[in-house]
Amino acid sequence: MAQGTIADIGVIGLGVMGRNLAANLADHGAMVAGTDLDAGRRAAFAAAVPNGVACETAEELLAALKAPRVVLIMVPAGPAVDALLAALLPRLSDGDVLIDGGNSHYQDTRRRAALAAEAGVHFVGLGVSGGEEGARRGPALMAGGTADGIGRVAPLLQAIAARAADGTPCFARVGPDGAGHFVKMIHNGIEYADMQLIAEGYHLLRHLGGFSYDRLAETFAAWNGGELASYLMEITADILRTPDPETGAPILEVIQDAAGQKGTGHWATTTAMELGMPAPTIAEAVHARCLSALKGERLRAADTFPPPPPAATLPETFAADVGDALLCGRIAVYAQGFAVIAAGSARFGWDVDLAAVASVWRGGCIIRARLVDRILAALTRAPDLPNLMFDPDIGALLARGEAGWRRAVGAAVAAGQPVPAMASALSYWDGYRSGRLWANMIQAQRDCFGAHGYERTDRPGMVHTQWGR
Amino acid sequence: MAQGTIADIGVIGLGVMGRNLAANLADHGAMVAGTDLDAGRRAAFAAAVPNGVACETAEELLAALKAPRVVLIMVPAGPAVDALLAALLPRLSDGDVLIDGGNSHYQDTRRRAALAAEAGVHFVGLGVSGGEEGARRGPALMAGGTADGIGRVAPLLQAIAARAADGTPCFARVGPDGAGHFVKMIHNGIEYADMQLIAEGYHLLRHLGGFSYDRLAETFAAWNGGELASYLMEITADILRTPDPETGAPILEVIQDAAGQKGTGHWATTTAMELGMPAPTIAEAVHARCLSALKGERLRAADTFPPPPPAATLPETFAADVGDALLCGRIAVYAQGFAVIAAGSARFGWDVDLAAVASVWRGGCIIRARLVDRILAALTRAPDLPNLMFDPDIGALLARGEAGWRRAVGAAVAAGQPVPAMASALSYWDGYRSGRLWANMIQAQRDCFGAHGYERTDRPGMVHTQWGR
Repeated sequence: MAQGTIADIGVIGLGVMGRNLAANLADHGAMVAGTDLDAGRRAAFAAAVPNGVACETAEELLAALKAPRVVLIMVPAGPAVDALLAALLPRLSDGDVLIDGGNSHYQDTRRRAALAAEAGVHFVGLGVSGGEEGARRGPALMAGGTADGIGRVAPLLQAIAARAADGTPCFARVGPDGAGHFVKMIHNGIEYADMQLIAEGYHLLRHLGGFSYDRLAETFAAWNGGELASYLMEITADILRTPDPETGAPILEVIQDAAGQKGTGHWATTTAMELGMPAPTIAEAVHARCLSALKGERLRAADTFPPPPPAATLPETFAADVGDALLCGRIAVYAQGFAVIAAGSARFGWDVDLAAVASVWRGGCIIRARLVDRILAALTRAPDLPNLMFDPDIGALLARGEAGWRRAVGAAVAAGQPVPAMASALSYWDGYRSGRLWANMIQAQRDCFGAHGYERTDRPGMVHTQWGR
Repeated sequence: MAQGTIADIGVIGLGVMGRNLAANLADHGAMVAGTDLDAGRRAAFAAAVPNGVACETAEELLAALKAPRVVLIMVPAGPAVDALLAALLPRLSDGDVLIDGGNSHYQDTRRRAALAAEAGVHFVGLGVSGGEEGARRGPALMAGGTADGIGRVAPLLQAIAARAADGTPCFARVGPDGAGHFVKMIHNGIEYADMQLIAEGYHLLRHLGGFSYDRLAETFAAWNGGELASYLMEITADILRTPDPETGAPILEVIQDAAGQKGTGHWATTTAMELGMPAPTIAEAVHARCLSALKGERLRAADTFPPPPPAATLPETFAADVGDALLCGRIAVYAQGFAVIAAGSARFGWDVDLAAVASVWRGGCIIRARLVDRILAALTRAPDLPNLMFDPDIGALLARGEAGWRRAVGAAVAAGQPVPAMASALSYWDGYRSGRLWANMIQAQRDCFGAHGYERTDRPGMVHTQWGR
């Protein structure tokens, strides 16, 4: 129960993410008030944050906060955020700060920030990555909002954020209004695609290479010790050596191969298309999850159709080739993601500091990886790099891995093993560095059936041909 | 100027599509009233439809129509349609029919149909394919709306529609409210992907196979005489033999390789993701256009990076392999499209008759193709086919072309030629017929970092592992 205006921050929504962030804040010396409609969650908060202020209502929570009041909303993205905003805004005062720490769509955040600004309230759209454990021990935090509003909460957020290896807090103001949620959305799109790449690599080594789970675990652990080091690589190695407690079999053998998805991956690819910036490998990762979910149809198809062609003899370099495909594919995916962030920044006038994004992604988040250090260095050297692949250091990694990447995709294609992300990333790279692409044909077709017009190579301006059909 | 209630149908919006549909209607004996805010367009209508009723305002047009009044809206999709709807609904009477023949989003059409129904007005969302020429001489028409409302306009629409080879009009009521625009949206998605496949085929034969334009034109014309016959194949062959009137060079050599896009392709892939139904090759086609548009970056990249690896000796079957890739890829793309329509029909309770969709797509539209005859036969045999690829006849085409498809993609991958659509379609097919996919790894990762839970292969229900990290 609240007694006096004593709390530094109020958390509304005490699910596991809200509760863990609250406990993290308390660990760093903040007095935290918390509330939730659910009494059980309020009790769990009281247990997890013994010196916190458990409030029965949002009104009680607001009354417990020091001015200017700081409220962190941790409720499911969507109408619940709007409802809370409508309830809270009339009760907040000029200069108060409202933080939305959920996975809200950046367009919603833009709209809500404008609404809050009318009431004199700072609205901060905060991307939080790192899952439950990250929320508790140190998440990566991507904040969008006014410099004033974020400035007021920066000490708290810096305190609870993860630390990069050099000690820098993984927190940044990346831009105004929707910029934080935009960056988090792209983070999740990259996460989808890197997970899909890793899953394809595992599948190729297991079902084409015939690797045992011990050898798989060793291979991924070794990769995690090198250029491919990343959080996802690390947990993959752990997963590969985990037995099923019930049967003793490798746990992957008993996990159903039908993947779920929540939405931010699909938002990322939709946004890329809206901005006209290609992110094909993120798209493939989303569609690959959808395909995997058609398990019943797939089983029927596996029975109906002849098996894929037998694998030819694999090159001796096969495992290394797959590693090259994972690294080059990862580069292509981060390149797509940063290009979409740059496009969003330009479209919405956000002036996003891409290097700051890379700096935040060095720790705490799901996509932290050794590659991100190189990306940070590249963007520090050249903040306006049109594509990460242009960086000489990153380009050298691509050059080194390219031949193996091609061999891995080629072996999969020949043997009937689906590699949607690896192949898509390769086509992205091959397309990106092609001065001449197939699109002249598409323009000709569009002009032929739709009179859309086309540009010529030898002078500017649109022309239209009477195709004489 | 209107005199008396004499017109059978009014057309609001006399751009090239509206004017051509009006002329088509007049050709088939309808008395057509037309209006547009632009006086020049009204004059063009009067010239194109000499016995038509050119009206200065929508009010005048409504006054010129026989009851029950039928109004065809041909204005740009978006707010213009809402504005017209708001202006017209109060002036329309019970039983009147309002047709939106633009490329509206199906969710807008669902909303507008509900609004019109409140006013007792039938709202028909009409997908129109075939471009300007189709509108004038015979488009494919996919109608969504009430059976009553569509019944009233069916004679008119059947009269102006294209005819399939067997004489059937390419018009159907495919379902209520948004179903017609949904089907048109997927039509356009398929169109994007098939165009991309053809463009990749051209590019491979030209830049890997070294084909002259004469030989390219012969090859595509020959394909158009066989199983690959289609409207897009036909215009491709024509394009390949068209010289640039200014320079005499093959026209494709002077057309800029940066493709434009309008939006329905991107809606199609977004909708597929929302429905959880994979359409990766349609997605790749949209992203491929975006990639092509980065012409400046691509030129810089082509200068910066070493050229792709030299092509190994191509197999003697190379041209046939590319043809196999085009046919199998096309099958995969139509399969994706029909599966998304089925998913949309189930989601919105539309009860779409897939065979009727195939029947409409046999003529008039951009994606008409010999393959559509086989699809119609397949869906007539088995209306609930979960995927077109299960049909024995279509499956046999895949089986026949599969080896060549792999060789074509493999050759492109080895030689650094981007084939995003061909490779994506192949991964879709290889994934679809895989009883076991990589998604067990993705589920393990999601459970490991996000406690999302997973299903086991040996019993139903979600479980969660304490990963001991």
